[in-house]
Amino acid sequence: MDAAALRSEFPVLERTAYLNAGTCGPLPRAAADAARATLATGEADGRAGGYFTSMIAARDEQRQAYASLLGVDPGEVALTSCTSEGIVRVLAGLDLGRGDEILTSDQEHPGLLGPLSGAIAQRGVTVRMAPFAELAEAVGPQTRLVACSHVSWVDGELAPAALGELDVPVLLDGAQGVGAVATRPADLGCTFYAGSGQKWLCGAVGTGMLWIHPAWTDRVAAPGPTYQNLAEPARGLASDVRADAARHDSPALSPEGAAASLASFGVLAAAGWESVLARAAALAGSLAGRLSERGFEVAPRGETTLVSFRVEDPPAVRTRLAEAGVVVRDLPGRPWIRASVGAWNDESDLERLLDAL
Amino acid sequence: MDAAALRSEFPVLERTAYLNAGTCGPLPRAAADAARATLATGEADGRAGGYFTSMIAARDEQRQAYASLLGVDPGEVALTSCTSEGIVRVLAGLDLGRGDEILTSDQEHPGLLGPLSGAIAQRGVTVRMAPFAELAEAVGPQTRLVACSHVSWVDGELAPAALGELDVPVLLDGAQGVGAVATRPADLGCTFYAGSGQKWLCGAVGTGMLWIHPAWTDRVAAPGPTYQNLAEPARGLASDVRADAARHDSPALSPEGAAASLASFGVLAAAGWESVLARAAALAGSLAGRLSERGFEVAPRGETTLVSFRVEDPPAVRTRLAEAGVVVRDLPGRPWIRASVGAWNDESDLERLLDAL
Repeated sequence: MDAAALRSEFPVLERTAYLNAGTCGPLPRAAADAARATLATGEADGRAGGYFTSMIAARDEQRQAYASLLGVDPGEVALTSCTSEGIVRVLAGLDLGRGDEILTSDQEHPGLLGPLSGAIAQRGVTVRMAPFAELAEAVGPQTRLVACSHVSWVDGELAPAALGELDVPVLLDGAQGVGAVATRPADLGCTFYAGSGQKWLCGAVGTGMLWIHPAWTDRVAAPGPTYQNLAEPARGLASDVRADAARHDSPALSPEGAAASLASFGVLAAAGWESVLARAAALAGSLAGRLSERGFEVAPRGETTLVSFRVEDPPAVRTRLAEAGVVVRDLPGRPWIRASVGAWNDESDLERLLDAL
Repeated sequence: MDAAALRSEFPVLERTAYLNAGTCGPLPRAAADAARATLATGEADGRAGGYFTSMIAARDEQRQAYASLLGVDPGEVALTSCTSEGIVRVLAGLDLGRGDEILTSDQEHPGLLGPLSGAIAQRGVTVRMAPFAELAEAVGPQTRLVACSHVSWVDGELAPAALGELDVPVLLDGAQGVGAVATRPADLGCTFYAGSGQKWLCGAVGTGMLWIHPAWTDRVAAPGPTYQNLAEPARGLASDVRADAARHDSPALSPEGAAASLASFGVLAAAGWESVLARAAALAGSLAGRLSERGFEVAPRGETTLVSFRVEDPPAVRTRLAEAGVVVRDLPGRPWIRASVGAWNDESDLERLLDAL
């Protein structure tokens, strides 16, 4: 599938320069069709029988799809509703308390800071912040966990590679990572990787994943195992939790969402993940260069898919761009407009943004 | 809206005697249409802007709808993904530990038993079981919480009214309650009520609610507050959790699911909740009577919408009935077939079941 063929899978791109996958990816036609088909089955035949068995099958396929992208075993992947849910499960499940420190960075999203505030309030954990680029060196004797972005949501910087060399476990917030850049935990050297389904994987809102290093499966308690998480639900109180990461599956994921997400994954996988990642990185780099040429201050960034640049009054600029059919976002309290560039975009989208500025 | 008009809202009933709302309710056409409309917006316009603001509005309306049915303030209702999620949030959030006892019954679903097993394994809580009908008398000096069904999923028995008179807090698993029978916490005398959106409310899979008595809001910690649960997300670590029950909202609910669930609620509310509940109870009573007349042993039941009756080899009977277009369920390890009877059913559905038996 060439770039134009991939682009044609996304109806929103017919009218809009959609550059906001960092919030929600563009939804492929195939994904909407899959959700519609699941809905139609439930509506006409009832949501038992085929609807139910298809849901179970879709969950398995979704888990396998995510695992294939991460280069891990499907048994190491939990299906969550979002990145934050995965983060909460790790923070709540680890045996951390008073005297233990979690190290985080100054670039984090409320989706990580919220769960960290819970760990402080409820368990007396200490949270210390260090500059994102200096995290590895900032690890101290009380540090029991490093929890930070894989890719900064602010400006697209990458977590320092040195984090992969630490003895301390590392939880990466992969909201802006998975589907956007290379995310094999074996290469990153992390212990936990929490990702989103609805952003760079273009799946449904309410989907996500949590990868847990197999050596840590038994060290992350499931805060409350529900039906999906039990090895033998019919045994009730006597049932163990599932032996694999599925003990952390979200209790009730949407079947329509699973079908859509699987279809979205299929569209991107058919284009080839390597070329999807390379194309997005190249386009984002091209945008950063052209913005600089035009005199915009581009925020420091890695080889990622986010491009943030300084404007006066970002909310007003975002609104003006939206009226011109260009969808980007501003970042509350920061001076940047953030453009998210994916393999589905092309130079015409970048031109529209530059023209509208 | 009369009974026939209500029935005509549910496409599955055109061909099937659908008697399985205890698993998933029949999906009204209006709900599927609402989900399709939300999907279409996301597909064509992208999932920012209008898609996002509609999602926020639908959440507020969904919360108000649930609150209106419970007769409570919307600020007392959290939006969850399912009954079990609400149960987990209460069990994990209460300050319970070694030496504390939770009293439960012998009629409980894995959706409650799973979270209870987590409380045992992780916090050293003791769980004691007593017969469902004798729960109120079984409360002992170590009992810190009673956690049980509002309506038994096995046979439709109602929790004893005497639970409402206890000094100990009571958590009701309302999976078979909300939308099926009267569920005003003020009448039930409970402290927490966890319910499902996809069963008797005919909403999307992945929806539910948790009601928390306002005197207990601050005594149930949010295990990991995410973006939705923070009062001021932009303040990060410094943000408080929301002051109301929304601190327990699920982190990422499907916008399509919210739209569908709101539309389903609208269909039932338009028929009038009082008549929906009365009609379902009357039809279920009629089925129980006719089964008894034909010599079936009907399990003891309350004035609820579930009718369980004894057959040889329930899984085989369920399969045979499904082939005849009659959808019921069996209960693993128990001798019953369970029929779920709603206001959308009519005597013809009951006839089909009786004929097929």
